[in-house]
Amino acid sequence: MFEEYTSISAAMRFPKVPPTSKMTAAFLHSTYHNGRSLATAKGGPKLIVGHSRRDVATAAERASTERSLTRSARGQRAVQLLPTYLADARSVEKYSPQYPNGALQLGVAESQMLEDWLVPALNIDLKVSPDCIYYQPTPGRQGFRTAMASYMEDMLDLDKGRIDTEGLVVGAGCNAVLENLCICLAEAGDAVLIPTPYYAAFEFDLVARADLYVQAVTTRDHHPEVTSSDDPAIYYPSEASLDAAFEKALIAGHAPRILLISHPQNPLGICYPPEVMKICINWCRSRRVHLISDEIYAGSIYRPELAGFSSALKLADTQRGLGPYVHWVYALSKDFALSGLRVGAVYSENLEIRTPMQKLNDLCQISSTTQLWTETILNRVDAKGNSWVHSFRKENHRRLEARIEALTSVLDEVSIPYLAPTAGLFVWINMSQFLTEDSNLTDSERERKLYLSLVQEFGILLTPGDSTRNEHPGYFRCVFTAASDEEFELSLIRFRAFANARR
Amino acid sequence: MFEEYTSISAAMRFPKVPPTSKMTAAFLHSTYHNGRSLATAKGGPKLIVGHSRRDVATAAERASTERSLTRSARGQRAVQLLPTYLADARSVEKYSPQYPNGALQLGVAESQMLEDWLVPALNIDLKVSPDCIYYQPTPGRQGFRTAMASYMEDMLDLDKGRIDTEGLVVGAGCNAVLENLCICLAEAGDAVLIPTPYYAAFEFDLVARADLYVQAVTTRDHHPEVTSSDDPAIYYPSEASLDAAFEKALIAGHAPRILLISHPQNPLGICYPPEVMKICINWCRSRRVHLISDEIYAGSIYRPELAGFSSALKLADTQRGLGPYVHWVYALSKDFALSGLRVGAVYSENLEIRTPMQKLNDLCQISSTTQLWTETILNRVDAKGNSWVHSFRKENHRRLEARIEALTSVLDEVSIPYLAPTAGLFVWINMSQFLTEDSNLTDSERERKLYLSLVQEFGILLTPGDSTRNEHPGYFRCVFTAASDEEFELSLIRFRAFANARR
Repeated sequence: MFEEYTSISAAMRFPKVPPTSKMTAAFLHSTYHNGRSLATAKGGPKLIVGHSRRDVATAAERASTERSLTRSARGQRAVQLLPTYLADARSVEKYSPQYPNGALQLGVAESQMLEDWLVPALNIDLKVSPDCIYYQPTPGRQGFRTAMASYMEDMLDLDKGRIDTEGLVVGAGCNAVLENLCICLAEAGDAVLIPTPYYAAFEFDLVARADLYVQAVTTRDHHPEVTSSDDPAIYYPSEASLDAAFEKALIAGHAPRILLISHPQNPLGICYPPEVMKICINWCRSRRVHLISDEIYAGSIYRPELAGFSSALKLADTQRGLGPYVHWVYALSKDFALSGLRVGAVYSENLEIRTPMQKLNDLCQISSTTQLWTETILNRVDAKGNSWVHSFRKENHRRLEARIEALTSVLDEVSIPYLAPTAGLFVWINMSQFLTEDSNLTDSERERKLYLSLVQEFGILLTPGDSTRNEHPGYFRCVFTAASDEEFELSLIRFRAFANARR
Repeated sequence: MFEEYTSISAAMRFPKVPPTSKMTAAFLHSTYHNGRSLATAKGGPKLIVGHSRRDVATAAERASTERSLTRSARGQRAVQLLPTYLADARSVEKYSPQYPNGALQLGVAESQMLEDWLVPALNIDLKVSPDCIYYQPTPGRQGFRTAMASYMEDMLDLDKGRIDTEGLVVGAGCNAVLENLCICLAEAGDAVLIPTPYYAAFEFDLVARADLYVQAVTTRDHHPEVTSSDDPAIYYPSEASLDAAFEKALIAGHAPRILLISHPQNPLGICYPPEVMKICINWCRSRRVHLISDEIYAGSIYRPELAGFSSALKLADTQRGLGPYVHWVYALSKDFALSGLRVGAVYSENLEIRTPMQKLNDLCQISSTTQLWTETILNRVDAKGNSWVHSFRKENHRRLEARIEALTSVLDEVSIPYLAPTAGLFVWINMSQFLTEDSNLTDSERERKLYLSLVQEFGILLTPGDSTRNEHPGYFRCVFTAASDEEFELSLIRFRAFANARR
């Protein structure tokens, strides 16, 4: 181990985070979806948990944004809602054979492991029919929605024919369909409750245009029975924590209308047990709050026995179906690594929102040809009649398992704790032992310092827990699929180097 | 002529508009973007010009929509903003060889004349590169934006290299990019001024989620110099009419922030002369109001000499460029008849909205493969090095000209007045001579009666002027490209039949 560390150390010129002015320039010019920069975190504007577009700006920001007649304050504020870590991911120089000490990208939830399957699958001889030219049904093409319904039934272990395609709408990405669903369920200013830690971009997706108020559901204080801070149960929402968040939103003047659950959980990399999901479902129904189960990682459960996953669609199903309060969102971005195709889906059995949900989707429709393409992929069978999706998913699980095995072995070896992962593209790592003790710094600043040290001294770019509104500092999401095989191997070396250097 | 009329008459069993209950069912189940039904126009809720999402519902509607805990009022109200004529277009039985007296669809702005060019162009052997899989730059792929910039320069007669691709964002349809642009320019509740008659779906696109207030700019009363009611100048916005609309919006409590111009004009089928556009540009700059020039028909100017079209991008250009107040939107839906591909574009040189416009586009991105596809089409050259787009456009103009020639000959023959068309897919027809004189009816009801008679007795489905907020009853938009060749020929026979029967 030491040799490896020495050999890196000798060549060590890891990427510097640009100074503020350059960061600002990079941010303004970045063509990617990003937010405030690394360098502004200490002195710059700070988002607090619990905000809507109208509340998010400080008085000074508001004055500076609202004074302009050549742009809107709401547009400007939307940018401030973008997760910082995405800006960082774009502005830091990346590893490449030409820049061997560049940062290894382990922060953005993408999979680089599936090109060998997906590129040939996209390069098929697709027959585009004349009807593709013209306006399409706003909720999506019937053929594609039927294929998506069958795929859902198979993936989520539902009865064949259970999904009513009239309740299914496909739109340009999970964020797009989530936004539309929320607009159909809640008024501007209403609160969406989300258990922490949560996917940082939910704040952009729900607040930027839909103008909702995000109310974090903190869970730690509501688990007196949990003794270890690394027990996954500490993160489970309970009636008490949901009640507390409900009250908090009400006191802040925002009617609690939606509970958004990430299931499998991003960034934790685990699933909520069925009993936890049932608590959420029952709590929602009794409180008349809408439950949205975001199951975008439902096809990436690589340790099914440990995961114990059960879809909200299965758990909430009664003789009368899902009823008006349970909804589901999904996309092909994660399980298929097809984020570039912008294919999301929403399912609901609430008849009152059916028409609005179908019609509003006109503002974020998927290209007809992309629908045709993904329909073809979902329906594809090989010469023996086996589903291509089944083979693909099996192979994906094998690869996910192999990488997580390699990564957690190294973490075990260097005594870095983590939640035992079962699903998704990430592992939730507890690096709190490496936080500085400096008592002049806030928890956020201490975590930030560690985060910058990981990037600048060791070339490891992770998602900081602070951006996911995690309650304690020093936790990071590591997206172990975001790197190529070579980069992933190198990341293992760097993790060892980091731990050894810091002890 | 008489023979033709008789021969239709003998077989006449034209489509009946379904009764209210059926219409409502058709509306609720229609998978297309539609609105209130034909049958509700008389007794049902009536939209008034000048409204935002918050104002649109009557007190009764508001009570009924806001009472529900299982959906939002804003989602429900969004549906009410959809143009009625689209619901009608979906719910009435159409002409087919099996139903020869079905309605001829001449109401929805699509072109059915270009399949022979477009279907082969889409069925090319597209090479999908691995980078297509992953997250794309939120404003669009650089290659596609570069191709779109060149296309714009060519189509709009701008200098080569004039368009700065950093100001160009491509998104999932013209409505999607227009919504995002408006969110970046104006706050919820601000007013958008639109000269009448205007594209009916602007009310959905601008109000449903962006929550703007649509203020009609009425023009007739501000043209004392115009004597004929069929002189196009009567529809031109002037300083006086813009001032009047500005004041009206202010009095209603909505800050006027945007002037939206359809140029070439939909539904008029003509272009505003450069001097009219200059009045609008100067008025906007002096009032600090944003001008959005919607030039979605700029590639369909089939009579360029008569049209006298000049893009707002050309007219507003100064030594310092467009400045912060002039913006442009476009899509491939009309000039290319590719509405199913959802490819829109927005261009602005306002640096303050650049980042918000790029980032918010994340919620309505175009599939990477569709971007690649349309880039290929725009860049395509034949063996001789000639641009495919040039040949396509030329042929499209030839076909547009041929149909408009045939249609206006018939209208001349039967003495139905119309505005001499030069651009777009439609002609603006004055049918006011056929309005009933019944003084118990409102203007809207008189027009509606004529509209229903056209559908039910003569199988002609047009866009009623009322849905475009036209000031006088009895005007209709006829989309002469929405029908197949056979259907178009039949529509000529039916127009003759109608005129002869009604005199």
